[in-house]
Amino acid sequence: MNITAKIFALVALLSCLPALAGAPKGTPPKSKDTPSVAQVLSESKGSEWRRPDPENLLVMRLSSGRVVMELDPVYAPLHVANIRTLVREHYFDGLAIVRVQDDFVAQWDDPDADDGGDRQRIRSLGEAKATLPPEFTRPIGGSLPWVRLPDGDLYAPEVGFSDDFPAARDPAAHETWLVHCYGTLAVARDNPPDSGNGSALYVAIGQAPRRLDRNLTVVGRVVAGMENLSALPRGHGPLGFYAHPQERTPILDIRVAADLPRAQRPNIEILRTDSPTFRRLLEVTRNRHDAFYVTPPGKVDICAVAAPVRDVP
Amino acid sequence: MNITAKIFALVALLSCLPALAGAPKGTPPKSKDTPSVAQVLSESKGSEWRRPDPENLLVMRLSSGRVVMELDPVYAPLHVANIRTLVREHYFDGLAIVRVQDDFVAQWDDPDADDGGDRQRIRSLGEAKATLPPEFTRPIGGSLPWVRLPDGDLYAPEVGFSDDFPAARDPAAHETWLVHCYGTLAVARDNPPDSGNGSALYVAIGQAPRRLDRNLTVVGRVVAGMENLSALPRGHGPLGFYAHPQERTPILDIRVAADLPRAQRPNIEILRTDSPTFRRLLEVTRNRHDAFYVTPPGKVDICAVAAPVRDVP
Repeated sequence: MNITAKIFALVALLSCLPALAGAPKGTPPKSKDTPSVAQVLSESKGSEWRRPDPENLLVMRLSSGRVVMELDPVYAPLHVANIRTLVREHYFDGLAIVRVQDDFVAQWDDPDADDGGDRQRIRSLGEAKATLPPEFTRPIGGSLPWVRLPDGDLYAPEVGFSDDFPAARDPAAHETWLVHCYGTLAVARDNPPDSGNGSALYVAIGQAPRRLDRNLTVVGRVVAGMENLSALPRGHGPLGFYAHPQERTPILDIRVAADLPRAQRPNIEILRTDSPTFRRLLEVTRNRHDAFYVTPPGKVDICAVAAPVRDVP
Repeated sequence: MNITAKIFALVALLSCLPALAGAPKGTPPKSKDTPSVAQVLSESKGSEWRRPDPENLLVMRLSSGRVVMELDPVYAPLHVANIRTLVREHYFDGLAIVRVQDDFVAQWDDPDADDGGDRQRIRSLGEAKATLPPEFTRPIGGSLPWVRLPDGDLYAPEVGFSDDFPAARDPAAHETWLVHCYGTLAVARDNPPDSGNGSALYVAIGQAPRRLDRNLTVVGRVVAGMENLSALPRGHGPLGFYAHPQERTPILDIRVAADLPRAQRPNIEILRTDSPTFRRLLEVTRNRHDAFYVTPPGKVDICAVAAPVRDVP
């Protein structure tokens, strides 16, 4: 294994790539086999990767490490702007992960507030808004990027990637939305659809909770440090909230990467889903022919593949 | 909330039910709403629940607690028999969780052995077999229970439940198999399809790895204590294996429940998937109408719903 392959193998482990990773017993590829994910990635071109805009990267510090999230201002412009404002007003610093429900979500919030955060405090901070119109779906615009997956979907007429986020479309209704996959970041809310404001956020940590699609505002996805959420102790109160305050994981702070000193910014690249390498990845995932696989799956679910993330030196 | 509802709510949290549990912000149901899962379960009849055969229950003890798994001897008779034998020969006691790959699997094995366990030691123990024919699929028999899900599937012609395990069917090929969902228990192996023997086992801990269906022998599912696997620290060696031996989680022991003193046996019941209450659960999952949901999903994926498990006093 040369050094490039090693870097890619490492990145595959550290990034959002596990859904593409090897079978439960890893076996080295043979020459006539379908190439491995690491092999395909090692043959990619630099131009197929993009460096996320630091204005769209959130960095949450927990004592166990950092969680890096990419925001999507195209699908949820109002919520993304409000989250950035809340971050810059230091709303989240000192709050906590208050809920970890197995096979469902990890969620953070003001532990002393009602659902939707402490609205009075939010208003007192200055710019951030305490209520926002929902952004569950948006119109299909002509300029929206769309990389359609070929295999169909149970929940939506079409699925694919838009700006490398997993998404769905209903062409008849001219609507599109980001979908809930493992690692999806979205806005918790109360009953009224406009009761979310971005001060309470959750990340999906189990089987894709697709039933939430079009019912909550998805704002992005985790692109690094997912295990700092997914491996947290589960809560044993109702709905996976922690029963005792001391069980919560404190949030040291959340910052917009653009506001961090350059040396502290996440140094990552994301494989463009409209690139030939991503198409190749999809194909090797759909049609594995190697010493291990007896029956290639032939299909790939929208939540069974994610845009790979790599650390750059 | 009366005491019965409380018991059910508690059970919903402790069991394999989170996929059915509430939206990220919990909201009490209103009278005209689709009833909640807890409500539907509280109205079930005792006869709709079954007590699993203690010969089919494995109890793995970790320092953090117990993981209870139900084996399915109908789909994988040879592997289930071999696993029981290995357990009764105390093969697993003192071994370890050697691999936890985020969004993929938690796996246990003999840390000092090659893939497929220590075959020499397995043979030396007496009855257990070191190699077995694969049981990736089995013929559709006339007497096999089958509760078909109505919404289709991306990976298989038909999906549903067989003896309350998530399963798929290809009627044209007269084949059926258990599928990989969150919590599925299956047999790790080397490249040769007959190289698995049940001494190395894994549990799916992320998005359903359906590409493994028909490529590995599924032997059952976790029915209690899932978080003792899913919340383990992730491994940072290749494929999520722990890079350092001291990171592994030791297995204190694994026992067949039938061999435990009665007071130590898991006291659980599983809702029959051919019961009216389970059909009602499916329906409330597919078509939610309440104060929270704006757009009912209308569909349910085979891995988005599981047979509920409850503790019995």
